[in-house]
Amino acid sequence: EARQMLLDLNVVDIAQLLEEIKGEKLVVVFRLLPKELVADIFSYMPQEQKQYLIETITDQEVTRIMEDLFLDDTVDMLEELPANMVKKILKNTDDDRRRLINRFLQYPENSAGSIMTIEYVDLKEEMSVAQALAYIRRTGVDKETINNCYVMDKNRKLVGIVSLRRLILAGEATPIRNVMEKKIVHIDTSMDQEEIAHLFRKYDLTTMPVVDKEKRLVGIITIDDIVDIIEQENTEDFQKMAAMEPSDEAYLKTSSFVLARHRIVWLLVLMVSATLTGSIIRSFEEVLQSVVILAAFIPRLMDTGGNAGSQSATLVIRGLALEEIRLKDAFKVMGKELRVSLLVGAALSSINFLLIHFLEGTDIRIAFTVAVSLFLTVVLAKVLGGALPIIAKKLRLDPAIMAGPLITTVVDAVALLAFFSLSKAILGL
Amino acid sequence: EARQMLLDLNVVDIAQLLEEIKGEKLVVVFRLLPKELVADIFSYMPQEQKQYLIETITDQEVTRIMEDLFLDDTVDMLEELPANMVKKILKNTDDDRRRLINRFLQYPENSAGSIMTIEYVDLKEEMSVAQALAYIRRTGVDKETINNCYVMDKNRKLVGIVSLRRLILAGEATPIRNVMEKKIVHIDTSMDQEEIAHLFRKYDLTTMPVVDKEKRLVGIITIDDIVDIIEQENTEDFQKMAAMEPSDEAYLKTSSFVLARHRIVWLLVLMVSATLTGSIIRSFEEVLQSVVILAAFIPRLMDTGGNAGSQSATLVIRGLALEEIRLKDAFKVMGKELRVSLLVGAALSSINFLLIHFLEGTDIRIAFTVAVSLFLTVVLAKVLGGALPIIAKKLRLDPAIMAGPLITTVVDAVALLAFFSLSKAILGL
Ligand SMILES: [Mg+2]
Ligand SMILES: [Mg+2]
Ligand SMILES: [Mg+2]
Ligand SMILES: [Mg+2]
Ligand SMILES: [Mg+2]
Ligand SMILES: [Mg+2]
Ligand SMILES: [Mg+2]
Ligand SMILES: [Mg+2]
Ligand SMILES: [Mg+2]
Ligand SMILES: [Mg+2]
Ligand SMILES: [Mg+2]
Ligand SMILES: [Mg+2]
Ligand SMILES: [Mg+2]
Repeated sequence: EARQMLLDLNVVDIAQLLEEIKGEKLVVVFRLLPKELVADIFSYMPQEQKQYLIETITDQEVTRIMEDLFLDDTVDMLEELPANMVKKILKNTDDDRRRLINRFLQYPENSAGSIMTIEYVDLKEEMSVAQALAYIRRTGVDKETINNCYVMDKNRKLVGIVSLRRLILAGEATPIRNVMEKKIVHIDTSMDQEEIAHLFRKYDLTTMPVVDKEKRLVGIITIDDIVDIIEQENTEDFQKMAAMEPSDEAYLKTSSFVLARHRIVWLLVLMVSATLTGSIIRSFEEVLQSVVILAAFIPRLMDTGGNAGSQSATLVIRGLALEEIRLKDAFKVMGKELRVSLLVGAALSSINFLLIHFLEGTDIRIAFTVAVSLFLTVVLAKVLGGALPIIAKKLRLDPAIMAGPLITTVVDAVALLAFFSLSKAILGL
Repeated sequence: EARQMLLDLNVVDIAQLLEEIKGEKLVVVFRLLPKELVADIFSYMPQEQKQYLIETITDQEVTRIMEDLFLDDTVDMLEELPANMVKKILKNTDDDRRRLINRFLQYPENSAGSIMTIEYVDLKEEMSVAQALAYIRRTGVDKETINNCYVMDKNRKLVGIVSLRRLILAGEATPIRNVMEKKIVHIDTSMDQEEIAHLFRKYDLTTMPVVDKEKRLVGIITIDDIVDIIEQENTEDFQKMAAMEPSDEAYLKTSSFVLARHRIVWLLVLMVSATLTGSIIRSFEEVLQSVVILAAFIPRLMDTGGNAGSQSATLVIRGLALEEIRLKDAFKVMGKELRVSLLVGAALSSINFLLIHFLEGTDIRIAFTVAVSLFLTVVLAKVLGGALPIIAKKLRLDPAIMAGPLITTVVDAVALLAFFSLSKAILGL
């Protein structure tokens, strides 16, 4: 009865429940799963469990799972298995499929080749709708999707896409040629997954064909994988923007050592850069010596500069990622950031002046110095925050690194330089 | 011939090209578009152009577009049109549809109700596969998707989903009841879009049924809209994490005033909070007066603390958003952040000690004070960065606000307090 309860669940939920089961018990339960669901459930299991099962189950069982698993999921799993288990799997795979797997393993990470699969429906352009439907009925059961079918000419060149919907709605005698869509969004195996995701989003696609140089179909990409990729690319941007080396392992599954390693490099670089800011303060030692209270305004300037810069950088990085901002918009962005920074800077520095002078009772000349420095800091931070991501993109660097942490460090130095120079001049030191 | 060139393009690209055309010319070109593509192209146009066209074209033309437009797109457009244009549209809509539109307009923003559409295929459970296919052939052309069809019982309660794929692969005489999937992921009209997107991602869905309290189907949600929603929710998090009020308007289309307004509130709050840090420095005026050089280490402590805290907060906020981290993992996260912070803190503060003492030639006691303060700062920053987003989630606040800017401000104060207290003690002032 436990088995029946399990089977009333979605395969994703079954896989999730199995996560709680460890060791030999897992194998026992796994063997109780109905044959037609095994591969599907397997594909949703975490890598450690996949590995454990592959190690433990018999060769025949491995073969059976591999036959039902989609090629993209197989390749993803193999990429992370130790060599001896890859061997165990390839040994239990027929020659054709082994060759295919080996080819797919060679596509670079995050390329179209690495995310595509080959379980698609291929039609010939001379078929009629009735023939196509008959062919789909015969072969469709093993395909990842049959909602879009791919039409080839005699040279196996991709000439069109026809949706199952169109096939159903069209007359049986109609030639495929007349119902297929000839305007195809297609890509080659080397395109980066981020760009692919962008095409899916722009054209509202659910599948996309991947072709070789001769425009022969080599695989298809499906929307479920794209949804994961979109989140993955966003995670990468979040991590880079917070000055970390990106990693697509889940937080709780990453060891503290690895987490520390991903974080320390940038922290170190930024810490050493902050030495510059420190030495600016050092060079104004006498000014500080005579008006020690000036030091109390350092946090305000630094934090506001950092935050103002982060805001601008974040919006521009995001705009670039969504392709709402393009390189040609560089001057528009700078103009906008300049205007915004004048508004925000003026507001913040006047409020700040009032606060410092009237509420905290600080000398009016100091209050004025702080206000002017704050204004300059905000303007600089925002203009830099707007410009640096675009410059990075122009230089083919990832705009996401030009975010808060880096901008803060640059702005800090200039802000304090302005502040102390102004103080020196205005206070007549 | 220009027209033919245009028509060789995807509707999305046609809409994009039309964006360049302004004023009356737009109406002229728009009228040249083939009738069957008009509504589709229209749905991809920017709101300003939609508004201009609605204002300009005849009532009959409005009616024709409205007939072909999917309900979700109609409602989205109406939500942002001025009242007189909404009137023009509703006047040219038949009674049934007008009632429907008015009902859909009432669903709260970002709820399932606001993103669903009603152009789905409804089947009856007593139909056979052949009957279902015949029904789909008759009605399918106006549906947003026919890839998944919804099966109802006599009371119009949703009892199953059957994919077109299953219908095609099943025998014609089979009752729908036997081929439909009874394990359905369904939601009600009030569910938030972020949660819905999470379900699509988890279960690899391309459509999802929305039901009312009696489990009657009221609409479906399709993956193309979910892809946009995922990016929208990510944008929201990016904005909140950079201390801005979220907005889903594109950067370049937002005026400088609005941008400034979205940014100033948090900047002001954080600036005023930085006053606390300032007054901590003030309270150590004598210490600073005797060893003015201490001020030179303020940027290093503040920046490193801010960056270290941002890193942790970002990973935890992201983990919570992707549901890789749950509330019950609070202690695991804190433990991990503590371990990471000990590692990172120890490394950074020893390097810092060596740098300050040996390279910069600073007094060993000062170098030691800076190193210890830096260590404490990193530990505090990371533990707070790990804890605050989880606490926010627990309090039903958005974890994304507990990011770098807020954490920096808190950590700054504590870091400087520790630094000056330690200096006072160690330097014997
Ligand atoms: Mg899959
Ligand atoms: Mg792969
Ligand atoms: Mg889209
Ligand atoms: Mg896949
Ligand atoms: Mg990437
Ligand atoms: Mg990227
Ligand atoms: Mg809507
Ligand atoms: Mg998924
Ligand atoms: Mg649509
Ligand atoms: Mg839609
Ligand atoms: Mg939201
Ligand atoms: Mg959110
Ligand atoms: Mg800072």
